[in-house]
Amino acid sequence: MSISTSPHSHFLLRKQNQNHFVPKTVSAPVSLPSSRPFRPIKIKCATQIQTQDPHAARAQAQAHAQERVFNFAAGPAILPESVLLRAQSELYVWPGSGMSVMEMSHRGKEFKSIIEKAESDLRTLLQIPPEYSVLFLQGGATSQFAALPLNLCAAATDPVDYVVTGSWSDKAFKEAQKFCKPNVVWSGKAEKYTKIPPFGELKQNPDAKYLHICANETIHGVEFKNYPTPKNPNGVLVADMSSNFCSKPVDVSKFGVIYAGAQKNVGPSGVTIVIIRNDLIGHAQGLTPVMFDYKIHAENNSLYNTPPCYGIYMCGLVFEDLLEQGGLVEVEKKNQKKAEILYNAIDGSNGFYKSPVEKSVRSLMNVPFTLEKSELEGEFIKEAAKEKMVQLKGHRSVGGMRASIYNAMPLAGVQKLVAFMKDFQARHA
Amino acid sequence: MSISTSPHSHFLLRKQNQNHFVPKTVSAPVSLPSSRPFRPIKIKCATQIQTQDPHAARAQAQAHAQERVFNFAAGPAILPESVLLRAQSELYVWPGSGMSVMEMSHRGKEFKSIIEKAESDLRTLLQIPPEYSVLFLQGGATSQFAALPLNLCAAATDPVDYVVTGSWSDKAFKEAQKFCKPNVVWSGKAEKYTKIPPFGELKQNPDAKYLHICANETIHGVEFKNYPTPKNPNGVLVADMSSNFCSKPVDVSKFGVIYAGAQKNVGPSGVTIVIIRNDLIGHAQGLTPVMFDYKIHAENNSLYNTPPCYGIYMCGLVFEDLLEQGGLVEVEKKNQKKAEILYNAIDGSNGFYKSPVEKSVRSLMNVPFTLEKSELEGEFIKEAAKEKMVQLKGHRSVGGMRASIYNAMPLAGVQKLVAFMKDFQARHA
Repeated sequence: MSISTSPHSHFLLRKQNQNHFVPKTVSAPVSLPSSRPFRPIKIKCATQIQTQDPHAARAQAQAHAQERVFNFAAGPAILPESVLLRAQSELYVWPGSGMSVMEMSHRGKEFKSIIEKAESDLRTLLQIPPEYSVLFLQGGATSQFAALPLNLCAAATDPVDYVVTGSWSDKAFKEAQKFCKPNVVWSGKAEKYTKIPPFGELKQNPDAKYLHICANETIHGVEFKNYPTPKNPNGVLVADMSSNFCSKPVDVSKFGVIYAGAQKNVGPSGVTIVIIRNDLIGHAQGLTPVMFDYKIHAENNSLYNTPPCYGIYMCGLVFEDLLEQGGLVEVEKKNQKKAEILYNAIDGSNGFYKSPVEKSVRSLMNVPFTLEKSELEGEFIKEAAKEKMVQLKGHRSVGGMRASIYNAMPLAGVQKLVAFMKDFQARHA
Repeated sequence: MSISTSPHSHFLLRKQNQNHFVPKTVSAPVSLPSSRPFRPIKIKCATQIQTQDPHAARAQAQAHAQERVFNFAAGPAILPESVLLRAQSELYVWPGSGMSVMEMSHRGKEFKSIIEKAESDLRTLLQIPPEYSVLFLQGGATSQFAALPLNLCAAATDPVDYVVTGSWSDKAFKEAQKFCKPNVVWSGKAEKYTKIPPFGELKQNPDAKYLHICANETIHGVEFKNYPTPKNPNGVLVADMSSNFCSKPVDVSKFGVIYAGAQKNVGPSGVTIVIIRNDLIGHAQGLTPVMFDYKIHAENNSLYNTPPCYGIYMCGLVFEDLLEQGGLVEVEKKNQKKAEILYNAIDGSNGFYKSPVEKSVRSLMNVPFTLEKSELEGEFIKEAAKEKMVQLKGHRSVGGMRASIYNAMPLAGVQKLVAFMKDFQARHA
């Protein structure tokens, strides 16, 4: 197996042999708009260095490349390098606008083109049927935990069903108790949230307005591989897809509502995406805060009040990148490949590493694992960080390790982690 | 009066005479992480050009400088150029972290240092007393319209008072009707929201839990120059300061709650800042969504769920910039100067331009004005845009023009607008 020692050398700007683009830090005195005295600020950016010595240029390039790490954080999480570089190039002036995206009126034609393209690209990616609305909101999935019952239940007495497969579906269930009568139709708590139930085991209420699942539990690493059908023929399936959104194709028509915080697979934190079937819009309870009313946002194309413009712009860049990769079919293949080599490394370690999760429902996105010698966990994390692989510590509620390998994690990152795991095992077995 | 024809030439990176930093666009083939075929992406950034010809360099620099416009938008709005350049320089890798701020775990030490510094700098700027909490939230002021009564009223029957001086205080009042018994103690509607009332005219309820004001009405351009006192000795003053937040010193101790969307004076959209006296925290109504409960956010230092990390980082850069300018006393002086020359130009136009707002309460931030010959408004906006002054159209609800001249609008921008107004008048009087 060939593993790059420079995590991101595959991404350095390169133009034939004699012209190497290497990043350089320049320190320049800057005259500030307020006529303050000069002060130096650091401007770091890619500068074209003309050199006759490709080795020297490569050495410089590698020195910079090592500035970036492989980030296994569960979210906010790694973003595609091409997206970051494009965002950097456009930060000061978005082409043709004379200003940063962060400065644009949300009602101006420039930002409208940005949000409309983001929605259009997302519709293409997920093949969202026309009878669904796409909303770009704020407040994270946690806000949706309240918005869902407020919009989908006519009264606080309406019954709804929750499948509790981990921390996030449990939080969603608890918040819903304020606004409807939620019922837990299955809980994985007794087995430490390591399973997804056979759908026949779900004790669904035939009157439930909706059946709620968390499609991928970020903390516990269990993922639905297919989806249950609500028992109530007038009920709908609702899914929190925060941590596997756009990681694979999904048949949107099976769902009434899909919602996701952007900060795992598709953007920075601060954007929440809601995909909702239009007939479910417009029935909010009377005491619904205006910001939680889907009708308000749908009628105003997510521009009722000022949306999180820059985050939406970033999501748009990611959608474009996913389409350029060939869409979600191709993205899923890459994610399967990455997960496969990581789970194989765990399963092939003779018990040195362990995955607590039932094999058939292991997440392609979040891979929790433990060390048989748990006293080595701190050392593992420390050594990995030295090798520029960070954020491998498991969630504080479950301990152990967790490698989040979202869309933007390159194969090379997982390969490097697996090589490190084998080396660590060889030294500590 | 000397006016630069190049809006931002005062800001070009410059280092003595022989070294000119001029921005340059380079097009480089980039190898993408997914091993896709090379494709060219544009990286635009400041590149050091060694030249013996300062004139040529200056010409290049001016050509680039003209890419940026003076943006008079009401929000999202102009940001300080130094802040944008710093953000650009740090976007790909935040120094020492190996990743972008957008990729950082909100629970990691790097982001904690960012949010803690942002809070600390804001506390310094506004001299926030220690018995107040600072919260970085999502959802805009519109979310606070609901959160305020949900947190400050024990029951939906509690009376509260609203001063309605424009569209925003009216929206706040209407949303509060869902969660308490709000009473309009004064309305400027009959006079088209051009006044702030003498405080003696406020028909306050002695039992009102709070007295709500909008400190600066973004659409109508009226601004409180001092603040009323709640009649109820146990009540508190609550202010929406979205559009004049950090534009001048404020005695925070006069308020129970100050809240502000960041996207006018202190950052991009997607961040809402709440400054709240600690004894007001912890009394939310039972049906308060968890995301609207100040206690949850205060106890978790704004990290209960994933906050809008990048927006908070940007606010932090702005706070740092405001402190470097000498703090809010100095900032207010600049804002007064800018507003003075703009209002003088309007008042000195022999009625060609008109400000509808009563002189004593004119906003230093948002300056609506009309043309006596209203048929020329379209032409005014079109010609201004050609001169790289954009977003001067008044809000659709009131028409006319509006120049928003927030902290980040340089004096040169207002000077250029005033010169244009005089020239336009000379040609069309």
